[in-house]
Amino acid sequence: MKHTISVLVENQPGVLSRISGLFSRRGFNIDSLAVGVTDDPSVSRVTIIVDGNEYTVEQVLKQLNKLIDVIKVKCLGADENIARELVLVKIAVTGDKRSEIMTLAEITKAEIIDISPTTMTLQLADTTPNVMRFEEIVKAYGVIEEVRTGVIALEKGAECITVKK
Amino acid sequence: MKHTISVLVENQPGVLSRISGLFSRRGFNIDSLAVGVTDDPSVSRVTIIVDGNEYTVEQVLKQLNKLIDVIKVKCLGADENIARELVLVKIAVTGDKRSEIMTLAEITKAEIIDISPTTMTLQLADTTPNVMRFEEIVKAYGVIEEVRTGVIALEKGAECITVKK
Repeated sequence: MKHTISVLVENQPGVLSRISGLFSRRGFNIDSLAVGVTDDPSVSRVTIIVDGNEYTVEQVLKQLNKLIDVIKVKCLGADENIARELVLVKIAVTGDKRSEIMTLAEITKAEIIDISPTTMTLQLADTTPNVMRFEEIVKAYGVIEEVRTGVIALEKGAECITVKK
Repeated sequence: MKHTISVLVENQPGVLSRISGLFSRRGFNIDSLAVGVTDDPSVSRVTIIVDGNEYTVEQVLKQLNKLIDVIKVKCLGADENIARELVLVKIAVTGDKRSEIMTLAEITKAEIIDISPTTMTLQLADTTPNVMRFEEIVKAYGVIEEVRTGVIALEKGAECITVKK
C-alpha cells in the first residue's frame, strides 16, 4: 500500500542527503521523493511516497523524527490528501498531427510550451493516475524525452502541518 | 549564476542518496533538485539547479559522471531550456473573497483544486519567476501551507538527451 509522508525540514545543506541516505540504508522502498521550499524560506517540505505496510510506515516516521533538521513529520491519510505531479514531455510531431495534439492538450488540460519543425513539448500537472494515462496517449506519437517531478501533496480542507519551532 | 543540469540515472535504490551526498560533501550549492521516472521505467531523470561559476559547474559535471548508476549528464544552456515547477498553496479564504481568488486563478492560469468553509487550495505549474510572483500575490490572503516541487527542464526544440546504454 502507498503512503504519503510530508516532512518539514530546516532548509540546510545536507538535509536531502541525510533523508535519502536513511531510506537507502534501511532498504525502504521509495516510489517518489520531492523537495521544495515553502512560504518560509528557512523551511523546506519533502513529500515521500512509500510502498509498504503499516509497520514499515511507522518505522519510517520514527527514523525521520530522529533526524537532525527535521521539524515535523506527518503521514497524510490516503483519502484526505490532494496529490499532484508535473510532467514535461517532448514528442515527435509534424504537419497536420499538430492539430491532433492541440485537441489532446485541450481535453487533458495539458499546455503546449514549445514547438519546433519536428517536435512539440507539453506540460501537464495532475494526479499520478492522470499523468500515467496522459503518458499512455502521447506514447503513440513517439516520445523523444520526458521529465517528471516527484509527487507533492497537501491535506484536503483546513488541516495543515504547522511549524512550531 | 544559475546552471541547469540534467542527469539520466539508472532507477536504482540509493542513487538519489549518492547524488545528494556528492553535493553536500563537496559543498556545492544546490538551489533545487527534482527526480522522477522517464518514459523508460528503468531510467530516472534528475534536474539540478546549481548556483556557481563555470569552474564549479565543470567540477559538478565531472563528479556526477564518475558516479555509478549515472548514464548521462548535460548542462542545459540557459536560453535553450524550458524549465517549470509546480506549487500547491492553501490560503485562508471565506465569503466574497472566493470570487477574488477565482479571478486571480484565471489571470495566473492557476487551478483551484480544493475548497473548504475556510480555505481554498490552488495549483500552479509555471516558470520559477512566475511561481514566485504568484506566491507574492496570494501571500496577502494568508498562506496556511505550501509545497513546491523542484524545477524540471527539457531543452527547447528537437535537442534531447538520449540514453545509450
